[in-house]
Amino acid sequence: MKRILVINPNSNQHVTDGLAASLEPLNIDGRAEIECMTLTEGPFGIETRHDMESVVLPLRRTVLKRDDADAYVIACYSDPGLALCREATRKPVYGIQESGLFSALQRGQRVGVVALGPKSIARHLPYIRALGLYDRLAAERPLHMSVEESEQPEAFPRIEAVARGLVEHDYADTLLLGCAGMAAHCKPLEAAIGVPVTDPTQAATAQALAAVLLD
Amino acid sequence: MKRILVINPNSNQHVTDGLAASLEPLNIDGRAEIECMTLTEGPFGIETRHDMESVVLPLRRTVLKRDDADAYVIACYSDPGLALCREATRKPVYGIQESGLFSALQRGQRVGVVALGPKSIARHLPYIRALGLYDRLAAERPLHMSVEESEQPEAFPRIEAVARGLVEHDYADTLLLGCAGMAAHCKPLEAAIGVPVTDPTQAATAQALAAVLLD
Amino acid sequence: MKRILVINPNSNQHVTDGLAASLEPLNIDGRAEIECMTLTEGPFGIETRHDMESVVLPLRRTVLKRDDADAYVIACYSDPGLALCREATRKPVYGIQESGLFSALQRGQRVGVVALGPKSIARHLPYIRALGLYDRLAAERPLHMSVEESEQPEAFPRIEAVARGLVEHDYADTLLLGCAGMAAHCKPLEAAIGVPVTDPTQAATAQALAAVLLD
Amino acid sequence: MKRILVINPNSNQHVTDGLAASLEPLNIDGRAEIECMTLTEGPFGIETRHDMESVVLPLRRTVLKRDDADAYVIACYSDPGLALCREATRKPVYGIQESGLFSALQRGQRVGVVALGPKSIARHLPYIRALGLYDRLAAERPLHMSVEESEQPEAFPRIEAVARGLVEHDYADTLLLGCAGMAAHCKPLEAAIGVPVTDPTQAATAQALAAVLLD
Amino acid sequence: MKRILVINPNSNQHVTDGLAASLEPLNIDGRAEIECMTLTEGPFGIETRHDMESVVLPLRRTVLKRDDADAYVIACYSDPGLALCREATRKPVYGIQESGLFSALQRGQRVGVVALGPKSIARHLPYIRALGLYDRLAAERPLHMSVEESEQPEAFPRIEAVARGLVEHDYADTLLLGCAGMAAHCKPLEAAIGVPVTDPTQAATAQALAAVLLD
Amino acid sequence: MKRILVINPNSNQHVTDGLAASLEPLNIDGRAEIECMTLTEGPFGIETRHDMESVVLPLRRTVLKRDDADAYVIACYSDPGLALCREATRKPVYGIQESGLFSALQRGQRVGVVALGPKSIARHLPYIRALGLYDRLAAERPLHMSVEESEQPEAFPRIEAVARGLVEHDYADTLLLGCAGMAAHCKPLEAAIGVPVTDPTQAATAQALAAVLLD
Repeated sequence: MKRILVINPNSNQHVTDGLAASLEPLNIDGRAEIECMTLTEGPFGIETRHDMESVVLPLRRTVLKRDDADAYVIACYSDPGLALCREATRKPVYGIQESGLFSALQRGQRVGVVALGPKSIARHLPYIRALGLYDRLAAERPLHMSVEESEQPEAFPRIEAVARGLVEHDYADTLLLGCAGMAAHCKPLEAAIGVPVTDPTQAATAQALAAVLLD
Repeated sequence: MKRILVINPNSNQHVTDGLAASLEPLNIDGRAEIECMTLTEGPFGIETRHDMESVVLPLRRTVLKRDDADAYVIACYSDPGLALCREATRKPVYGIQESGLFSALQRGQRVGVVALGPKSIARHLPYIRALGLYDRLAAERPLHMSVEESEQPEAFPRIEAVARGLVEHDYADTLLLGCAGMAAHCKPLEAAIGVPVTDPTQAATAQALAAVLLD
Repeated sequence: MKRILVINPNSNQHVTDGLAASLEPLNIDGRAEIECMTLTEGPFGIETRHDMESVVLPLRRTVLKRDDADAYVIACYSDPGLALCREATRKPVYGIQESGLFSALQRGQRVGVVALGPKSIARHLPYIRALGLYDRLAAERPLHMSVEESEQPEAFPRIEAVARGLVEHDYADTLLLGCAGMAAHCKPLEAAIGVPVTDPTQAATAQALAAVLLD
Repeated sequence: MKRILVINPNSNQHVTDGLAASLEPLNIDGRAEIECMTLTEGPFGIETRHDMESVVLPLRRTVLKRDDADAYVIACYSDPGLALCREATRKPVYGIQESGLFSALQRGQRVGVVALGPKSIARHLPYIRALGLYDRLAAERPLHMSVEESEQPEAFPRIEAVARGLVEHDYADTLLLGCAGMAAHCKPLEAAIGVPVTDPTQAATAQALAAVLLD
Repeated sequence: MKRILVINPNSNQHVTDGLAASLEPLNIDGRAEIECMTLTEGPFGIETRHDMESVVLPLRRTVLKRDDADAYVIACYSDPGLALCREATRKPVYGIQESGLFSALQRGQRVGVVALGPKSIARHLPYIRALGLYDRLAAERPLHMSVEESEQPEAFPRIEAVARGLVEHDYADTLLLGCAGMAAHCKPLEAAIGVPVTDPTQAATAQALAAVLLD
Repeated sequence: MKRILVINPNSNQHVTDGLAASLEPLNIDGRAEIECMTLTEGPFGIETRHDMESVVLPLRRTVLKRDDADAYVIACYSDPGLALCREATRKPVYGIQESGLFSALQRGQRVGVVALGPKSIARHLPYIRALGLYDRLAAERPLHMSVEESEQPEAFPRIEAVARGLVEHDYADTLLLGCAGMAAHCKPLEAAIGVPVTDPTQAATAQALAAVLLD
């Protein structure tokens, strides 16, 4: 029985519970179990780069301490500590922005990202360039919402409007949700817009699942 | 029960059997079944671009006819017909070069590809550029072997030598096997070299598995 | 006497006749003759990727069968079968999108493409990336017209408006017509806008002419 | 009767005569005439950047003065004054490096350039990046020869050796001669190596020919 | 005592005086002196490419003649003659667009450039691509002003509006003034917008100062 | 009197003393003072990514605590904590790899980096891609030395050999020392090789000096 540890780097247990629900289908009876944990040392929300950097060493310590796990997912769209955790263990470690972009780009040619706000877009763009995917980005467009707001059912109309703009004006043919908290909107959005929509945490956890099943 | 159809575009049943063996761990009891099929209209081996183009429309017909499947994998490293099959169905379709590169790049920063020969390298390079990943390629280096030779246990020493060169001279920190037939060398190579090694068919089928489990 | 075979991959003879008229000036008495032929196996119009893929093998067969020709032009802006036909013969084969972009970029620094609609733009963008020219594209903007509509004299005002936008808002300094059927608008558009305008079929046929004259 | 003015920016009449011979096939009886002229103000040879810059304003004056011509070719592989001359006239002006690269890339995916020496390679590389073609360059390799040496029949074995290395080690599938003086080696090299070889002055003059025929 | 020669390539002494004022803080008592000189052979204003090319050889002559200087700055945003002057002397030579971009990119991830007008933007974009910085440009937006207008205090509101748009709509997090004449707006703009603003002539002269102090 | 704080992130006081010596020329009497400090919380040497990440938050704390400084330099070639420190203060913060690359690229077109070993090269390459400068890198070549070894006078012959290879085989025309400890080799190397050589800590401190003088 293999174990995938999905680490929510903020200390908000509600977010962790949401992750567990959206990842439920990736539990494989008798073969692979997904455990979603809260990084209690983390800030309540990760909103600034300082928040992000503050979880880097705790994430590494968690990975080292939890050596009972067979693969790791860092469930924050900024992919904090990803390179460091990869050097700390030879087991696979996945980041949700990286996995989300790669998965979305296997469903289309140009990815459109539904982001929370302009500041997060400004943070993501250099990272996308570092990944080498800058020319495959249709655009990243803001909801002007907080994480909490974006999780609510009431957020759907605005998410749909932003997504439609990405397809119609920016020629995106595959969409990615730019935050760990929007999984519940994934399938309804796909139905409404008619192009594939990827949830990044599901994408990263699926990579982890593949790794442990093939190990 | 979901079904993933892995299509071997050549008509060599021995290759199909090898794929089935290497993908066995991705069958999930009661939830997802992998079926490896031989494209009987395909050439015995896909070695030229004409071979490759000759399977494009048959692959599309197969995808349309086999609408009992929930996801598709085209198991030829040239990714023939990938864009077309994606337009033929709203179900996900995966190509092994694309999936292999994306998976390998989640285990390191610069991917080294173990290729069969210079001609296949020449074909792959523009495709890698089209994918946007040209700057993340450490190098692609040739075995100077046929598909058949590369499958044999005797091929391992040469595969290991090429892989070591990719790591030591080209600074690759993650490796990808550049053909559908080398899966059996994957784990031994990883053990010998000490950096992650990705088998492309396993990578693509894992993507397909994730898609059907999350559907 | 050399012969250039311009193949219209759709089966619409009216389009072929239009090509012949626009290429008339490239016939060279006693030295090079341009023959425009209709691919009778082709669909009446090439509008989907399936249409496009369906002509790939017929185009190769045509090239092989018509070995009395000295050079070939594939007169569809999607450049179907270009790589394959190039491997089928050592004689030169030209695609109109590729030739059109290269020619336009010899008249300015940033090319603006007048396209039929958003779907064709979405298809062209990855190809432009594959050609390596992504950073030299000012923009590609849609007419929201069919091929037939774009050929009519009545289309000119809209073509002019889109072209003007490419120059004024996207800083294009050279323009390319993004379809085989707009050649008649080429010179009037250049006169109206004041920047060079390239017709892609003329550009490709001119490359073929140079090749046969220099052979 | 249209006139194409091919300007040799150095004052070596022997070079001009060689250009006229290699461009002879592009004269079209009664329709287009190619005139090769020597820029008498130019240095005897263009070897330094100062040589190159010293011909920029004289080239512009020549273009303005010779307004009886319908198109212009600047026959020095450094493309001196190309942007300036393009702003001085609305008639088309072509540079041989630019045209050579674009033509060669219509005969293959990755271009290998046979250059005179390391210094010229160092000058060309940033220009290729400016053209946007950096990722389509297989490599540029030096002959370690002067212009004069490269023109001689005795140079052929070394040219062939460098060309073969570009194909075999750098995976070039199309070759370009990196100097205005090697045209006589073009066809023999193509025969010896078996991949297309482009002479840059012929490529640029062919573009000019197309422009005047279509005007 | 080291000397930095800042050459204003146009013959407008008023501009030279403005440069001297804005560079005053970079004079270092007893160690480094900045001399701003007017290129009397230059046009009164550099507005066209011909203006720009016309100063290339005079700039080189000035650099050679003024060999009492220890470093040189070419104070025109088009960086005329930069490569040539660098080959004319082993002393360092700086161009203000190049230095300005590099300095601005040390204060943020994506640079926004406040340009005079669309024509200058069209000239700058290929140069930025040549520098390799195309993917780090947020955008370049026009004031629709002449050099003279942009220097006036009355220009500030429009400069501020353009700058704000670069930050808010184009996600620039660092700004660059796209002309040698806007230095007086630099600090007020930084105060108004809240992101770093770089004056390009100051940036280039600072590089020159570092070079002479470290020599 | 302005103060530039140069922070050596490792706790080796000997390294800090070396920095102070090499930066001595950038002290400006009565206007700007350079203070080199040792990060006592840092590891004795920064050799792994964990070492590097372990100084990120201490560097930020140091920047916040030392708000008497007017500009900051992080004197480790991996640029640890650069983005974070930039968000922690509105004063300018410089990283030596970033500044070194930008300065070196103002002395030539293609930069060659003399690195300590293959592992550091592997770490630098993605960062160079993130900076957008990948296509301007001639190559990065290893000394196969530790920091300590590279500082010694005995290291010079090997440094010279690697540097010569970068110029002769990789066509570098400007060189950068890839570590904070090689400053003493800078001028002798420039004299020996004949192309400009940049020391990264001097480059970053010069940027800081410019910023405080212009403030």
